[in-house]
Amino acid sequence: MSIHFKQVAIVGVGLIGGSLGMILKRDGLAEGVVGIGRSLTNLELAVKLGAIDRFEREAGEVMGDSDLVILATPVESYLGHLRNWAKHLKPGTIVSDVGSVKGQLIEQVEELVPPGVCFVGAHPIAGMEKSGVRAGSPDLFRGTTCILTPTARTNTDALNKVQGLWEAVGSVIISLDPFLHDWILGAVSHLPHIAAFALMNALADLQRETIGDVPLLDFSGGGLRDATRIAASSPEMWRDILLRNRENLLAMIETYQRHLQKYKELLKSQDGPGLEKEMAQAREARHRLK
Amino acid sequence: MSIHFKQVAIVGVGLIGGSLGMILKRDGLAEGVVGIGRSLTNLELAVKLGAIDRFEREAGEVMGDSDLVILATPVESYLGHLRNWAKHLKPGTIVSDVGSVKGQLIEQVEELVPPGVCFVGAHPIAGMEKSGVRAGSPDLFRGTTCILTPTARTNTDALNKVQGLWEAVGSVIISLDPFLHDWILGAVSHLPHIAAFALMNALADLQRETIGDVPLLDFSGGGLRDATRIAASSPEMWRDILLRNRENLLAMIETYQRHLQKYKELLKSQDGPGLEKEMAQAREARHRLK
Repeated sequence: MSIHFKQVAIVGVGLIGGSLGMILKRDGLAEGVVGIGRSLTNLELAVKLGAIDRFEREAGEVMGDSDLVILATPVESYLGHLRNWAKHLKPGTIVSDVGSVKGQLIEQVEELVPPGVCFVGAHPIAGMEKSGVRAGSPDLFRGTTCILTPTARTNTDALNKVQGLWEAVGSVIISLDPFLHDWILGAVSHLPHIAAFALMNALADLQRETIGDVPLLDFSGGGLRDATRIAASSPEMWRDILLRNRENLLAMIETYQRHLQKYKELLKSQDGPGLEKEMAQAREARHRLK
Repeated sequence: MSIHFKQVAIVGVGLIGGSLGMILKRDGLAEGVVGIGRSLTNLELAVKLGAIDRFEREAGEVMGDSDLVILATPVESYLGHLRNWAKHLKPGTIVSDVGSVKGQLIEQVEELVPPGVCFVGAHPIAGMEKSGVRAGSPDLFRGTTCILTPTARTNTDALNKVQGLWEAVGSVIISLDPFLHDWILGAVSHLPHIAAFALMNALADLQRETIGDVPLLDFSGGGLRDATRIAASSPEMWRDILLRNRENLLAMIETYQRHLQKYKELLKSQDGPGLEKEMAQAREARHRLK
Protein backbone atom coordinates (compact mmCIF):
# COMPACT_ATOMS: atom_id res chain seq x y z
CA MET A 1 0.00 0.00 0.00
CA SER A 2 1.28 3.44 -0.85
CA ILE A 3 1.19 5.49 2.34
CA HIS A 4 0.64 9.21 2.12
CA PHE A 5 -0.78 11.71 4.59
CA LYS A 6 -1.76 15.31 3.98
CA GLN A 7 -0.86 16.63 7.40
CA VAL A 8 0.48 14.66 10.34
CA ALA A 9 0.25 16.22 13.80
CA ILE A 10 2.78 14.87 16.29
CA VAL A 11 1.87 15.56 19.90
CA GLY A 12 5.12 15.42 21.88
CA VAL A 13 8.23 15.85 19.72
CA GLY A 14 10.75 13.81 21.70
CA LEU A 15 12.89 10.88 20.60
CA ILE A 16 10.08 8.78 19.12
CA GLY A 17 7.81 11.59 17.87
CA GLY A 18 10.78 13.47 16.47
CA SER A 19 12.27 10.44 14.72
CA LEU A 20 8.90 9.65 13.16
CA GLY A 21 8.64 13.24 11.91
CA MET A 22 12.14 13.03 10.40
CA ILE A 23 11.32 9.96 8.36
CA LEU A 24 7.86 11.23 7.33
CA LYS A 25 9.51 14.33 5.94
CA ARG A 26 12.57 12.65 4.46
CA ASP A 27 10.62 9.98 2.61
CA GLY A 28 7.73 12.25 1.63
CA LEU A 29 5.20 10.17 3.53
CA ALA A 30 3.38 13.36 4.57
CA GLU A 31 2.92 16.72 2.89
CA GLY A 32 3.27 18.52 6.19
CA VAL A 33 4.31 17.60 9.75
CA VAL A 34 3.18 19.82 12.62
CA GLY A 35 4.61 19.43 16.12
CA ILE A 36 2.56 20.10 19.24
CA GLY A 37 4.45 20.51 22.52
CA ARG A 38 4.98 22.40 25.75
CA SER A 39 8.53 23.63 25.31
CA LEU A 40 9.21 26.36 22.76
CA THR A 41 12.95 25.59 22.84
CA ASN A 42 12.31 21.95 22.04
CA LEU A 43 9.87 22.74 19.23
CA GLU A 44 12.31 25.20 17.66
CA LEU A 45 15.05 22.57 17.91
CA ALA A 46 12.73 20.03 16.27
CA VAL A 47 12.20 22.37 13.30
CA LYS A 48 15.95 22.91 13.04
CA LEU A 49 16.61 19.15 13.11
CA GLY A 50 14.06 18.52 10.36
CA ALA A 51 11.65 16.60 12.59
CA ILE A 52 8.68 18.92 11.92
CA ASP A 53 7.82 21.67 9.43
CA ARG A 54 6.21 23.93 11.99
CA PHE A 55 4.68 23.82 15.45
CA GLU A 56 1.79 24.98 17.56
CA ARG A 57 1.66 25.09 21.32
CA GLU A 58 -2.14 24.94 21.33
CA ALA A 59 -3.40 21.99 19.30
CA GLY A 60 -6.94 23.25 18.48
CA GLU A 61 -7.26 24.07 14.77
CA VAL A 62 -4.24 22.02 13.67
CA MET A 63 -6.23 18.92 14.54
CA GLY A 64 -9.04 19.82 12.16
CA ASP A 65 -6.56 19.97 9.26
CA SER A 66 -4.69 16.74 10.07
CA ASP A 67 -5.51 13.31 8.70
CA LEU A 68 -3.14 11.57 11.15
CA VAL A 69 -2.50 12.54 14.77
CA ILE A 70 0.25 10.73 16.70
CA LEU A 71 0.24 10.82 20.50
CA ALA A 72 3.91 10.67 21.52
CA THR A 73 3.80 12.08 25.07
CA PRO A 74 4.03 10.17 28.36
CA VAL A 75 0.98 7.90 28.31
CA GLU A 76 -0.84 9.39 31.28
CA SER A 77 -1.29 12.67 29.41
CA TYR A 78 -3.21 11.12 26.48
CA LEU A 79 -6.60 11.60 28.11
CA GLY A 80 -5.98 15.26 28.97
CA HIS A 81 -4.84 15.92 25.42
CA LEU A 82 -7.90 14.30 23.89
CA ARG A 83 -10.24 16.20 26.21
CA ASN A 84 -8.59 19.40 24.99
CA TRP A 85 -8.75 18.94 21.26
CA ALA A 86 -10.63 15.77 20.27
CA LYS A 87 -13.67 17.92 19.37
CA HIS A 88 -11.65 19.54 16.56
CA LEU A 89 -10.88 16.20 14.86
CA LYS A 90 -12.70 15.63 11.53
CA PRO A 91 -14.36 12.29 10.69
CA GLY A 92 -11.92 10.00 8.91
CA THR A 93 -8.94 11.29 10.87
CA ILE A 94 -6.74 8.57 12.35
CA VAL A 95 -5.42 8.99 15.89
CA SER A 96 -2.55 6.69 16.84
CA ASP A 97 0.11 6.58 19.54
CA VAL A 98 3.55 5.18 20.33
CA GLY A 99 3.04 4.35 24.01
CA SER A 100 4.48 1.45 25.98
CA VAL A 101 1.20 0.56 27.75
CA LYS A 102 -2.14 -0.24 26.18
CA GLY A 103 -4.80 -2.27 28.04
CA GLN A 104 -7.41 -0.14 29.70
CA LEU A 105 -5.78 3.07 28.47
CA ILE A 106 -6.85 2.13 24.93
CA GLU A 107 -10.44 1.68 26.09
CA GLN A 108 -10.38 5.13 27.71
CA VAL A 109 -8.88 6.70 24.59
CA GLU A 110 -11.53 5.06 22.40
CA GLU A 111 -14.22 6.64 24.61
CA LEU A 112 -12.79 10.12 24.03
CA VAL A 113 -12.38 9.90 20.26
CA PRO A 114 -15.39 11.44 18.42
CA PRO A 115 -17.58 9.30 16.11
CA GLY A 116 -15.97 8.74 12.73
CA VAL A 117 -12.46 9.29 14.06
CA CYS A 118 -10.42 6.07 14.20
CA PHE A 119 -7.99 5.19 16.95
CA VAL A 120 -5.23 2.62 16.37
CA GLY A 121 -2.87 1.71 19.21
CA ALA A 122 0.78 1.28 18.20
CA HIS A 123 3.98 0.65 20.15
CA PRO A 124 7.27 0.87 18.25
CA ILE A 125 9.87 -0.94 20.35
CA ALA A 126 12.72 1.49 19.87
CA GLY A 127 14.54 4.25 21.63
CA MET A 128 15.53 2.62 24.88
CA GLU A 129 17.33 4.86 27.34
CA LYS A 130 17.77 7.86 25.09
CA SER A 131 15.34 10.75 25.11
CA GLY A 132 14.75 14.04 23.36
CA VAL A 133 14.48 14.97 19.70
CA ARG A 134 18.23 15.63 19.64
CA ALA A 135 18.79 11.86 19.96
CA GLY A 136 16.30 11.25 17.12
CA SER A 137 17.09 9.70 13.76
CA PRO A 138 15.05 8.89 10.66
CA ASP A 139 16.56 5.41 10.91
CA LEU A 140 15.52 4.76 14.51
CA PHE A 141 12.80 2.28 13.57
CA ARG A 142 14.69 0.31 10.93
CA GLY A 143 14.58 -3.39 11.77
CA THR A 144 12.69 -2.88 15.03
CA THR A 145 9.34 -4.39 15.98
CA CYS A 146 6.17 -2.32 16.07
CA ILE A 147 3.27 -3.84 17.99
CA LEU A 148 -0.25 -2.87 16.91
CA THR A 149 -3.06 -3.42 19.42
CA PRO A 150 -6.38 -3.41 17.55
CA THR A 151 -9.63 -3.90 19.48
CA ALA A 152 -13.17 -4.81 18.43
CA ARG A 153 -13.72 -1.09 17.77
CA THR A 154 -10.70 -0.60 15.50
CA ASN A 155 -11.50 0.43 11.92
CA THR A 156 -9.82 -1.94 9.46
CA ASP A 157 -8.85 0.72 6.92
CA ALA A 158 -7.25 2.85 9.64
CA LEU A 159 -5.45 -0.22 11.00
CA ASN A 160 -4.07 -1.00 7.54
CA LYS A 161 -2.91 2.59 7.08
CA VAL A 162 -1.08 2.66 10.43
CA GLN A 163 0.44 -0.73 9.65
CA GLY A 164 1.57 0.61 6.27
CA LEU A 165 3.13 3.63 7.96
CA TRP A 166 5.23 1.54 10.33
CA GLU A 167 6.22 -0.86 7.56
CA ALA A 168 7.29 2.16 5.49
CA VAL A 169 9.64 3.34 8.26
CA GLY A 170 11.28 -0.08 8.41
CA SER A 171 9.51 -1.89 11.26
CA VAL A 172 8.29 -5.47 11.47
CA ILE A 173 4.63 -5.53 12.56
CA ILE A 174 3.07 -7.77 15.20
CA SER A 175 -0.55 -7.55 16.35
CA LEU A 176 -1.46 -8.23 19.98
CA ASP A 177 -4.45 -7.86 22.23
CA PRO A 178 -3.87 -4.66 24.30
CA PHE A 179 -3.98 -6.52 27.63
CA LEU A 180 -1.65 -9.30 26.44
CA HIS A 181 0.65 -6.55 25.15
CA ASP A 182 0.88 -5.12 28.68
CA TRP A 183 1.64 -8.50 30.22
CA ILE A 184 4.36 -9.26 27.69
CA LEU A 185 5.96 -5.82 27.77
CA GLY A 186 5.62 -5.82 31.55
CA ALA A 187 7.81 -8.92 31.61
CA VAL A 188 10.38 -8.17 28.92
CA SER A 189 10.65 -4.40 29.34
CA HIS A 190 8.96 -2.81 32.37
CA LEU A 191 10.21 -5.33 34.97
CA PRO A 192 13.79 -5.15 33.62
CA HIS A 193 13.58 -1.35 33.87
CA ILE A 194 12.50 -1.56 37.52
CA ALA A 195 15.29 -4.08 38.16
CA ALA A 196 17.87 -1.74 36.62
CA PHE A 197 16.56 1.41 38.33
CA ALA A 198 16.50 -0.36 41.72
CA LEU A 199 20.01 -1.72 41.15
CA MET A 200 21.36 1.79 40.62
CA ASN A 201 19.46 2.99 43.71
CA ALA A 202 21.08 0.12 45.66
CA LEU A 203 24.56 0.94 44.34
CA ALA A 204 24.11 4.58 45.37
CA ASP A 205 23.34 3.29 48.89
CA LEU A 206 26.33 0.94 48.87
CA GLN A 207 28.61 3.77 47.77
CA ARG A 208 27.67 5.59 50.99
CA GLU A 209 28.58 2.49 53.02
CA THR A 210 31.98 2.03 51.38
CA ILE A 211 34.98 2.59 53.63
CA GLY A 212 37.01 5.65 52.76
CA ASP A 213 36.60 7.80 49.69
CA VAL A 214 36.70 4.94 47.22
CA PRO A 215 34.64 5.86 44.14
CA LEU A 216 32.79 2.54 43.93
CA LEU A 217 31.36 3.04 40.46
CA ASP A 218 34.80 3.69 38.95
CA PHE A 219 35.47 -0.02 39.39
CA SER A 220 32.58 -1.13 37.23
CA GLY A 221 33.26 -2.89 33.96
CA GLY A 222 31.22 -3.30 30.82
CA GLY A 223 28.92 -5.74 32.62
CA LEU A 224 27.39 -3.18 34.98
CA ARG A 225 27.33 -0.54 32.29
CA ASP A 226 25.25 -2.74 30.00
CA ALA A 227 23.12 -4.15 32.82
CA THR A 228 22.01 -0.68 33.90
CA ARG A 229 21.93 1.20 30.61
CA ILE A 230 18.12 1.32 30.75
CA ALA A 231 18.31 2.97 34.19
CA ALA A 232 19.24 6.14 32.29
CA SER A 233 15.71 6.25 30.81
CA SER A 234 13.34 9.16 31.37
CA PRO A 235 11.78 9.05 34.88
CA GLU A 236 8.77 11.05 33.66
CA MET A 237 7.97 8.63 30.85
CA TRP A 238 8.55 5.57 33.02
CA ARG A 239 6.47 6.92 35.90
CA ASP A 240 3.44 6.80 33.60
CA ILE A 241 4.26 3.40 32.11
CA LEU A 242 4.83 1.73 35.49
CA LEU A 243 1.71 3.23 37.05
CA ARG A 244 -0.48 2.20 34.11
CA ASN A 245 0.84 -1.36 34.19
CA ARG A 246 1.05 -1.60 37.97
CA GLU A 247 -1.22 -4.63 38.42
CA ASN A 248 0.97 -6.80 36.19
CA LEU A 249 4.13 -5.30 37.61
CA LEU A 250 3.26 -5.84 41.26
CA ALA A 251 2.95 -9.56 40.53
CA MET A 252 6.08 -9.60 38.38
CA ILE A 253 8.22 -7.79 40.96
CA GLU A 254 7.10 -10.47 43.42
CA THR A 255 8.22 -13.21 41.06
CA TYR A 256 11.57 -11.45 40.80
CA GLN A 257 11.82 -10.98 44.56
CA ARG A 258 11.13 -14.70 45.02
CA HIS A 259 14.12 -15.57 42.87
CA LEU A 260 16.40 -13.07 44.61
CA GLN A 261 15.30 -14.59 47.89
CA LYS A 262 16.22 -18.01 46.53
CA TYR A 263 19.76 -16.83 45.73
CA LYS A 264 20.00 -15.46 49.24
CA GLU A 265 18.91 -18.75 50.78
CA LEU A 266 21.30 -20.75 48.60
CA LEU A 267 24.13 -18.45 49.69
CA LYS A 268 23.13 -18.67 53.33
CA SER A 269 23.13 -22.46 53.25
CA GLN A 270 26.31 -22.45 51.11
CA ASP A 271 24.54 -24.67 48.60
CA GLY A 272 27.00 -24.73 45.69
CA PRO A 273 25.15 -27.25 43.50
CA GLY A 274 21.87 -25.40 44.11
CA LEU A 275 23.42 -22.08 43.09
CA GLU A 276 24.96 -23.59 40.00
CA LYS A 277 21.64 -25.16 38.98
CA GLU A 278 19.75 -21.88 39.42
CA MET A 279 22.31 -19.96 37.37
CA ALA A 280 22.36 -22.67 34.70
CA GLN A 281 18.59 -22.26 34.30
CA ALA A 282 18.99 -18.48 34.02
CA ARG A 283 21.75 -18.90 31.46
CA GLU A 284 19.63 -21.28 29.42
CA ALA A 285 16.76 -18.75 29.36
CA ARG A 286 19.27 -16.03 28.39
CA HIS A 287 20.46 -18.12 25.45
CA ARG A 288 16.88 -18.12 24.15
CA LEU A 289 16.96 -14.31 23.78
CA LYS A 290 17.38 -13.41 20.15
CA MET B 1 60.69 -2.78 33.81
CA SER B 2 61.39 -5.36 31.13
CA ILE B 3 59.23 -8.38 31.87
CA HIS B 4 60.45 -11.82 30.92
CA PHE B 5 59.68 -15.26 32.32
CA LYS B 6 61.40 -18.53 31.58
CA GLN B 7 58.38 -20.76 31.91
CA VAL B 8 54.85 -19.73 32.82
CA ALA B 9 52.43 -22.41 34.01
CA ILE B 10 48.77 -21.54 33.49
CA VAL B 11 46.42 -23.63 35.62
CA GLY B 12 43.04 -23.54 33.87
CA VAL B 13 43.24 -22.57 30.21
CA GLY B 14 39.88 -20.87 29.73
CA LEU B 15 39.04 -17.38 28.52
CA ILE B 16 41.35 -15.52 30.91
CA GLY B 17 44.14 -18.09 31.24
CA GLY B 18 44.10 -18.73 27.49
CA SER B 19 44.14 -15.04 26.55
CA LEU B 20 47.05 -14.44 28.90
CA GLY B 21 48.93 -17.35 27.30
CA MET B 22 48.28 -15.93 23.83
CA ILE B 23 49.79 -12.56 24.64
CA LEU B 24 52.72 -14.04 26.61
CA LYS B 25 53.59 -16.07 23.52
CA ARG B 26 52.85 -13.39 20.94
CA ASP B 27 54.89 -10.71 22.67
CA GLY B 28 57.69 -12.99 23.80
CA LEU B 29 57.05 -12.29 27.48
CA ALA B 30 57.79 -15.94 28.31
CA GLU B 31 60.09 -18.51 26.75
CA GLY B 32 57.54 -21.24 27.32
CA VAL B 33 53.89 -21.44 28.36
CA VAL B 34 52.57 -24.70 29.80
CA GLY B 35 48.86 -25.29 30.32
CA ILE B 36 47.50 -27.41 33.16
CA GLY B 37 43.89 -28.56 32.93
CA ARG B 38 41.31 -31.31 33.27
CA SER B 39 40.05 -31.57 29.72
CA LEU B 40 42.32 -33.03 27.05
CA THR B 41 40.10 -31.61 24.30
CA ASN B 42 40.37 -28.14 25.74
CA LEU B 43 44.14 -28.35 26.22
CA GLU B 44 44.63 -29.56 22.64
CA LEU B 45 42.45 -26.71 21.44
CA ALA B 46 44.52 -24.27 23.50
CA VAL B 47 47.72 -25.47 21.77
CA LYS B 48 46.03 -25.11 18.38
CA LEU B 49 44.87 -21.57 19.21
CA GLY B 50 48.37 -20.52 20.29
CA ALA B 51 47.43 -20.05 23.95
CA ILE B 52 50.03 -22.54 25.27
CA ASP B 53 53.08 -24.34 23.91
CA ARG B 54 52.31 -27.63 25.56
CA PHE B 55 50.25 -29.06 28.39
CA GLU B 56 50.28 -31.42 31.32
CA ARG B 57 47.29 -32.89 33.08
CA GLU B 58 49.27 -33.50 36.25
CA ALA B 59 51.03 -30.36 37.44
CA GLY B 60 53.83 -31.91 39.55
CA GLU B 61 57.22 -31.42 37.84
CA VAL B 62 56.09 -28.55 35.60
CA MET B 63 55.82 -26.42 38.71
CA GLY B 64 59.43 -26.97 39.64
CA ASP B 65 60.54 -25.60 36.25
CA SER B 66 58.23 -22.56 36.21
CA ASP B 67 59.11 -19.10 37.48
CA LEU B 68 55.49 -17.90 37.22
CA VAL B 69 52.37 -19.92 37.98
CA ILE B 70 48.96 -18.41 37.22
CA LEU B 71 45.85 -19.82 38.89
CA ALA B 72 43.02 -19.31 36.39
CA THR B 73 40.46 -21.86 37.57
CA PRO B 74 37.24 -21.25 39.53
CA VAL B 75 38.46 -19.75 42.81
CA GLU B 76 37.28 -22.53 45.11
CA SER B 77 39.72 -24.96 43.50
CA TYR B 78 42.84 -22.89 44.31
CA LEU B 79 43.40 -24.58 47.66
CA GLY B 80 43.11 -28.09 46.27
CA HIS B 81 45.54 -27.24 43.49
CA LEU B 82 48.11 -25.83 45.90
CA ARG B 83 47.82 -28.83 48.20
CA ASN B 84 48.58 -31.02 45.16
CA TRP B 85 51.64 -29.31 43.78
CA ALA B 86 52.84 -26.44 46.01
CA LYS B 87 55.60 -28.67 47.35
CA HIS B 88 57.17 -28.78 43.86
CA LEU B 89 57.49 -24.98 43.63
CA LYS B 90 61.08 -23.66 43.83
CA PRO B 91 62.00 -20.64 45.99
CA GLY B 92 61.69 -17.43 43.99
CA THR B 93 58.75 -18.71 41.97
CA ILE B 94 55.82 -16.31 41.78
CA VAL B 95 52.30 -17.67 42.12
CA SER B 96 49.53 -15.33 41.02
CA ASP B 97 45.87 -15.64 40.07
CA VAL B 98 43.11 -13.95 38.09
CA GLY B 99 40.19 -14.58 40.45
CA SER B 100 37.22 -12.33 41.19
CA VAL B 101 37.34 -12.80 44.99
CA LYS B 102 40.25 -12.18 47.31
CA GLY B 103 39.74 -11.51 51.03
CA GLN B 104 40.18 -14.58 53.17
CA LEU B 105 40.97 -16.74 50.14
CA ILE B 106 44.27 -14.84 49.77
CA GLU B 107 45.13 -15.56 53.41
CA GLN B 108 44.44 -19.27 52.87
CA VAL B 109 46.52 -19.32 49.69
CA GLU B 110 49.42 -17.59 51.45
CA GLU B 111 49.34 -20.34 54.10
CA LEU B 112 49.75 -23.04 51.44
CA VAL B 113 52.60 -21.44 49.51
CA PRO B 114 56.04 -22.78 50.62
CA PRO B 115 58.66 -20.46 52.13
CA GLY B 116 60.48 -18.45 49.47
CA VAL B 117 57.60 -18.72 47.01
CA CYS B 118 55.76 -15.41 46.51
CA PHE B 119 52.03 -15.09 46.07
CA VAL B 120 50.54 -11.97 44.44
CA GLY B 121 46.77 -11.66 44.08
CA ALA B 122 45.55 -10.18 40.79
CA HIS B 123 42.13 -9.64 39.26
CA PRO B 124 41.98 -8.53 35.63
CA ILE B 125 38.50 -7.09 35.06
CA ALA B 126 37.88 -8.57 31.65
CA GLY B 127 36.00 -11.33 29.96
CA MET B 128 32.48 -10.77 31.15
CA GLU B 129 29.93 -13.32 30.01
CA LYS B 130 32.15 -15.21 27.61
CA SER B 131 34.02 -18.33 28.57
CA GLY B 132 36.42 -20.86 27.13
CA VAL B 133 39.76 -20.50 25.37
CA ARG B 134 37.95 -20.32 22.03
CA ALA B 135 36.64 -16.85 23.04
CA GLY B 136 40.17 -15.82 24.03
CA SER B 137 42.20 -13.07 22.43
CA PRO B 138 45.69 -11.64 23.02
CA ASP B 139 43.99 -8.22 23.10
CA LEU B 140 41.44 -9.12 25.80
CA PHE B 141 43.17 -7.06 28.48
CA ARG B 142 43.96 -3.95 26.45
CA GLY B 143 42.58 -0.89 28.22
CA THR B 144 41.00 -2.88 31.05
CA THR B 145 41.69 -2.51 34.75
CA CYS B 146 43.72 -5.07 36.68
CA ILE B 147 43.39 -4.94 40.46
CA LEU B 148 46.34 -6.14 42.53
CA THR B 149 45.67 -7.08 46.15
CA PRO B 150 48.97 -7.10 48.05
CA THR B 151 49.01 -7.99 51.74
CA ALA B 152 51.57 -7.49 54.51
CA ARG B 153 53.15 -10.76 53.36
CA THR B 154 53.51 -9.82 49.69
CA ASN B 155 57.08 -9.68 48.36
CA THR B 156 57.75 -6.30 46.71
CA ASP B 157 59.85 -7.66 43.83
CA ALA B 158 57.20 -10.23 43.01
CA LEU B 159 54.49 -7.54 43.21
CA ASN B 160 56.46 -5.34 40.80
CA LYS B 161 56.92 -8.23 38.39
CA VAL B 162 53.22 -9.10 38.37
CA GLN B 163 52.37 -5.42 37.96
CA GLY B 164 54.82 -5.23 35.04
CA LEU B 165 53.19 -8.27 33.45
CA TRP B 166 49.70 -6.77 33.53
CA GLU B 167 50.99 -3.42 32.31
CA ALA B 168 52.73 -5.24 29.46
CA VAL B 169 49.43 -6.82 28.34
CA GLY B 170 47.76 -3.41 28.27
CA SER B 171 45.99 -3.12 31.64
CA VAL B 172 45.74 -0.17 33.98
CA ILE B 173 46.79 -1.21 37.51
CA ILE B 174 44.99 -0.41 40.76
CA SER B 175 46.01 -1.74 44.18
CA LEU B 176 43.39 -2.57 46.78
CA ASP B 177 43.18 -4.29 50.12
CA PRO B 178 41.83 -7.83 49.44
CA PHE B 179 38.77 -7.32 51.67
CA LEU B 180 37.96 -3.90 50.21
CA HIS B 181 38.32 -5.50 46.77
CA ASP B 182 35.60 -7.99 47.66
CA TRP B 183 33.24 -5.28 48.92
CA ILE B 184 33.73 -3.16 45.81
CA LEU B 185 33.49 -6.03 43.34
CA GLY B 186 30.55 -7.42 45.30
CA ALA B 187 28.71 -4.17 44.62
CA VAL B 188 29.71 -3.40 41.03
CA SER B 189 29.98 -6.93 39.68
CA HIS B 190 28.69 -9.78 41.86
CA LEU B 191 25.39 -8.15 42.89
CA PRO B 192 24.62 -7.12 39.28
CA HIS B 193 25.30 -10.73 38.22
CA ILE B 194 22.83 -12.05 40.81
CA ALA B 195 20.30 -9.40 39.70
CA ALA B 196 20.66 -10.47 36.06
CA PHE B 197 20.58 -14.21 36.79
CA ALA B 198 17.48 -13.82 38.99
CA LEU B 199 15.80 -11.68 36.33
CA MET B 200 16.22 -14.41 33.74
CA ASN B 201 14.93 -16.98 36.26
CA ALA B 202 11.89 -14.73 36.82
CA LEU B 203 11.29 -14.31 33.09
CA ALA B 204 11.41 -18.08 32.64
CA ASP B 205 8.66 -18.31 35.30
CA LEU B 206 6.60 -15.55 33.67
CA GLN B 207 6.87 -17.31 30.32
CA ARG B 208 5.10 -20.29 31.89
CA GLU B 209 2.31 -18.01 33.13
CA THR B 210 1.76 -16.31 29.77
CA ILE B 211 -1.57 -17.04 28.10
CA GLY B 212 -1.30 -19.12 24.97
CA ASP B 213 1.86 -20.07 23.17
CA VAL B 214 3.27 -16.55 23.00
CA PRO B 215 7.07 -16.73 22.99
CA LEU B 216 7.56 -13.99 25.59
CA LEU B 217 11.27 -13.52 25.04
CA ASP B 218 10.80 -12.89 21.30
CA PHE B 219 9.34 -9.52 22.25
CA SER B 220 12.44 -8.32 24.06
CA GLY B 221 14.41 -5.42 22.65
CA GLY B 222 18.00 -4.32 23.07
CA GLY B 223 17.25 -3.19 26.62
CA LEU B 224 16.64 -6.67 28.03
CA ARG B 225 19.42 -8.16 25.95
CA ASP B 226 21.97 -5.75 27.40
CA ALA B 227 20.50 -5.89 30.91
CA THR B 228 20.90 -9.67 31.07
CA ARG B 229 24.02 -10.23 29.01
CA ILE B 230 25.97 -11.14 32.15
CA ALA B 231 23.37 -13.84 32.95
CA ALA B 232 25.08 -15.87 30.21
CA SER B 233 28.19 -16.17 32.42
CA SER B 234 29.58 -19.50 33.59
CA PRO B 235 27.51 -20.93 36.48
CA GLU B 236 30.52 -22.94 37.70
CA MET B 237 32.76 -19.90 37.95
CA TRP B 238 30.07 -17.76 39.53
CA ARG B 239 29.09 -20.42 42.05
CA ASP B 240 32.56 -20.10 43.56
CA ILE B 241 32.66 -16.30 43.43
CA LEU B 242 29.24 -15.86 45.04
CA LEU B 243 29.93 -18.40 47.78
CA ARG B 244 33.31 -16.87 48.63
CA ASN B 245 31.84 -13.37 48.83
CA ARG B 246 28.56 -14.44 50.44
CA GLU B 247 28.78 -12.29 53.58
CA ASN B 248 29.03 -9.09 51.54
CA LEU B 249 26.48 -10.33 49.04
CA LEU B 250 23.83 -11.29 51.60
CA ALA B 251 23.86 -7.69 52.84
CA MET B 252 23.94 -6.28 49.31
CA ILE B 253 21.03 -8.41 48.08
CA GLU B 254 19.07 -7.06 51.05
CA THR B 255 19.87 -3.48 50.03
CA TYR B 256 18.64 -4.34 46.54
CA GLN B 257 15.51 -6.05 47.87
CA ARG B 258 14.75 -2.95 49.95
CA HIS B 259 14.74 -0.79 46.83
CA LEU B 260 12.61 -3.23 44.86
CA GLN B 261 10.19 -3.22 47.77
CA LYS B 262 10.12 0.57 47.62
CA TYR B 263 9.13 0.48 43.94
CA LYS B 264 6.39 -1.96 44.84
CA GLU B 265 5.06 0.29 47.58
CA LEU B 266 5.18 3.36 45.34
CA LEU B 267 3.23 1.44 42.69
CA LYS B 268 0.72 0.15 45.23
CA SER B 269 0.03 3.65 46.55
CA GLN B 270 0.10 5.01 42.96
CA ASP B 271 2.64 7.59 44.06
CA GLY B 272 3.72 9.17 40.76
CA PRO B 273 6.01 11.87 42.19
CA GLY B 274 7.63 9.31 44.51
CA LEU B 275 8.30 6.93 41.60
CA GLU B 276 9.70 9.73 39.48
CA LYS B 277 12.01 10.85 42.31
CA GLU B 278 13.30 7.32 42.91
CA MET B 279 14.01 6.79 39.21
CA ALA B 280 15.64 10.22 38.91
CA GLN B 281 18.07 9.23 41.70
CA ALA B 282 18.83 5.96 39.91
CA ARG B 283 19.37 7.80 36.65
CA GLU B 284 21.71 10.27 38.32
CA ALA B 285 23.80 7.41 39.76
CA ARG B 286 23.81 5.78 36.31
CA HIS B 287 25.17 8.96 34.74
CA ARG B 288 28.15 8.70 37.10
CA LEU B 289 29.17 5.37 35.53
CA LYS B 290 32.11 5.92 33.24
